[in-house]
Amino acid sequence: MYDRMQELTGPQMEKIHDAAMDLLKHTGVAFNDEEGLEIFRSNGFRVDGSTVFFEEAQIQKALESAPKKFTVHARNPEKSVEIGEDDFVFLPGYGAPFVMDADGNQRQATMTDYDNFCKLIQTSPYIDMNGWMMVEPADMPHKTVHMDLALSSMLLCDKPFMGSPVSRQGALDGIEMAAILFGRKDGIMDKTVSVSLINSLSPLQFADEMIGSLIQLAKHNQACVVASLIMAGGSGPVTLDGVLALQNAEILSGITLAQLVRPGAPVIYGSTSSAMDMKTGALSIGAPELSKNINLVAQMARFYNLPSRSGGGLTDALSVDAQAGVESALALSTAARSGINFILHSCGILGSYIAMSFEKFLVDEETCGMVRAMLKPLAVTDESIDLDVIKEVGIGGQYLTHPKTFQLCRTEFHMPALMSRKNPDSWIKEGRRSIDRVAEDKVAQRLATYEKPDIDPDVEKELIEYVNRRKED
Amino acid sequence: MYDRMQELTGPQMEKIHDAAMDLLKHTGVAFNDEEGLEIFRSNGFRVDGSTVFFEEAQIQKALESAPKKFTVHARNPEKSVEIGEDDFVFLPGYGAPFVMDADGNQRQATMTDYDNFCKLIQTSPYIDMNGWMMVEPADMPHKTVHMDLALSSMLLCDKPFMGSPVSRQGALDGIEMAAILFGRKDGIMDKTVSVSLINSLSPLQFADEMIGSLIQLAKHNQACVVASLIMAGGSGPVTLDGVLALQNAEILSGITLAQLVRPGAPVIYGSTSSAMDMKTGALSIGAPELSKNINLVAQMARFYNLPSRSGGGLTDALSVDAQAGVESALALSTAARSGINFILHSCGILGSYIAMSFEKFLVDEETCGMVRAMLKPLAVTDESIDLDVIKEVGIGGQYLTHPKTFQLCRTEFHMPALMSRKNPDSWIKEGRRSIDRVAEDKVAQRLATYEKPDIDPDVEKELIEYVNRRKED
Repeated sequence: MYDRMQELTGPQMEKIHDAAMDLLKHTGVAFNDEEGLEIFRSNGFRVDGSTVFFEEAQIQKALESAPKKFTVHARNPEKSVEIGEDDFVFLPGYGAPFVMDADGNQRQATMTDYDNFCKLIQTSPYIDMNGWMMVEPADMPHKTVHMDLALSSMLLCDKPFMGSPVSRQGALDGIEMAAILFGRKDGIMDKTVSVSLINSLSPLQFADEMIGSLIQLAKHNQACVVASLIMAGGSGPVTLDGVLALQNAEILSGITLAQLVRPGAPVIYGSTSSAMDMKTGALSIGAPELSKNINLVAQMARFYNLPSRSGGGLTDALSVDAQAGVESALALSTAARSGINFILHSCGILGSYIAMSFEKFLVDEETCGMVRAMLKPLAVTDESIDLDVIKEVGIGGQYLTHPKTFQLCRTEFHMPALMSRKNPDSWIKEGRRSIDRVAEDKVAQRLATYEKPDIDPDVEKELIEYVNRRKED
Repeated sequence: MYDRMQELTGPQMEKIHDAAMDLLKHTGVAFNDEEGLEIFRSNGFRVDGSTVFFEEAQIQKALESAPKKFTVHARNPEKSVEIGEDDFVFLPGYGAPFVMDADGNQRQATMTDYDNFCKLIQTSPYIDMNGWMMVEPADMPHKTVHMDLALSSMLLCDKPFMGSPVSRQGALDGIEMAAILFGRKDGIMDKTVSVSLINSLSPLQFADEMIGSLIQLAKHNQACVVASLIMAGGSGPVTLDGVLALQNAEILSGITLAQLVRPGAPVIYGSTSSAMDMKTGALSIGAPELSKNINLVAQMARFYNLPSRSGGGLTDALSVDAQAGVESALALSTAARSGINFILHSCGILGSYIAMSFEKFLVDEETCGMVRAMLKPLAVTDESIDLDVIKEVGIGGQYLTHPKTFQLCRTEFHMPALMSRKNPDSWIKEGRRSIDRVAEDKVAQRLATYEKPDIDPDVEKELIEYVNRRKED
């Protein structure tokens, strides 16, 4: 299809691939974890200290066993999702330490905030999966908070969820809890019920907790996004061309480890790399370079027959203003159009990941719905064109009172839940409210009418007991 | 290229074409203007009353003579633009009766507002062409305001401009003035220096002033956008499939008239049709259906080898809020990605065309710059990847102080003029300003530092004399 965004040619993709192969063979990647290094050594990889070197054939073998598409099962089977090829999912923001309220006051996030985001996800018509650590609660003990998060994710929402990648033991906790939830007490699953985010430490490193998590998750057939977040000009080259090569090396090395642990383990090719702001030296996630990278990452993942992950509703703005709207819509629509399969950070992020906003969550959520509607194809059949109606109405007629308009008017078009289509008179009479103020009210309404999804009381009890027991360890 | 937005298949485009041919042959289009009807009659078209009926061969003949690309010459030759194929231009909003200020106060537009928009366009790094009637000044006599607008467009800005389609005489005034500006006193030009907007009156009609304008403009080789603005469910079918067929018939009939007047006259296939909001019965230009239509219009225009026109930064929001940002960014980026050549309404529109906003103009303008940056392809060469640098920095190093980062850091990435990348501390210290408030200050700065582009004083005098003389007629 004609597209003014860049389509990489075959030779260009080969060039990025070859550059990554060169790096993997000659510079290598540091895996700062003994179990990880032993897996590489025992599979015949050259290891020097903590640096692993890769031959192209070893990467190719891993790519052959990685699935191009997989299902993430939800405890409510109707909400299970497919990830790969034409299918894609929207997920909430991830990892924000603060909450920004509608007045621009920033405060530390709490466990109640996390729970409230779970409730918004449960009641969302457009967010397909629950996330992980939408906010980092400051009011919970650091060592065990991952189990509190997992418990909320599992109890407050029956959509598929993201898993805990905080450490080897943290990943195992998530797996054990998922096993309880899905009624498989041995804790070993042959079906994928979670996706976890394994980030590299650019350039060319993986930290021990990430490696430990990846090993445990892959072993249990739980999906891993292996992702780079390179700041072009800081933790990576100043050109996106160089970033593509560097992140490709990092991602492929992590995917290779997952496939060594368990051939066929579901993995996702991920990146949300972007530009460094040259004035402040900080990462810019509102930059157009983010969208450029998203479009090219989708292509590189398809080149390898892998599902892809990017960011979505991302912005540098610190309030839910027009900048937040523009930046988030550009990145989110680029991800969806260009073929990303796992669109993390679709909703709620403000200020370059510093904060989540409940109001922005709702604005972004509606954007997700609008983007889904934009992508829904027309039938273009004789029936959908219906020339008879056009001829019947004829020159200068009107369609408003035609029976066909009545018949289709409630289903044919996207019905906004939040976006205003008021005329100036009623808008002024109602106090000239901008959409973030309208969203503030709607957040309260959504939380007030939230209903906890049904769950077997024994399962709930067992989950809570698991968490309590582990907290005493 | 892989794209989740709909790509029409060949048979689907044929179906839309065939439906339009059927309508043109059997229902016809009303041209409410005697000169127009006489042109059709004298070229052998069947005319019954004011209804013209078209054979497919007559349409095909017109399509063969219409250029697929043309130049619009600016009085400053460096600012001339190409319209067609891969080239595209951003233009400001069009036709708003009101101005909405940053506090949400709506007031009637004045001539000073019009002039100020001309000044913003002149100083814009991203708006490629001046528009027409960005606002309708309420403080000028209706009968002659088109000449005041043209005079401002020509004197305050040296970019190419849009022409006056208000009436047969109004179009002629614009042509005479352009002739003075370009030093061709006979008023007949063999080069295109303006683009005018000829709208159909859906369904299946053209008003006399539009036909008169089109005839005069085509005769003088000035470009016409022939455009439909169908409200699906109101002035057209409730399905976009039906809208595509209906608008195709309208647009092709108008283009045919232009080609009968002057074979080879530059024309643009235009539409900014969208959905009717089913709750209010009003046109929604923030709806995702607008973007769907934009994507499909770009494809239908390419099917006919014609340049295309759509809307851009459109919204139903009445303030420069997150909704305005989301809706405008989705439509603008869709237009640019999908291949639209003439992106009208790129900047400034609020409230479903009811108002222009100076602050939104600046936000949208930056969006235009961001979209241009997103579309700029990477080189993907050995030089741009520069593997040596990546190897040199190696595992765990940093790129911030690398000479290559210094070398490229000012040119490699989009540098925002408006969008904020502040950290929370400085943002809070500076008063938690949302981007519309920042834009308010920047508008004042831009207008204060504006400089009128040089012009031959004799030409300026002659233009003013023309307008004064005609006002006495």
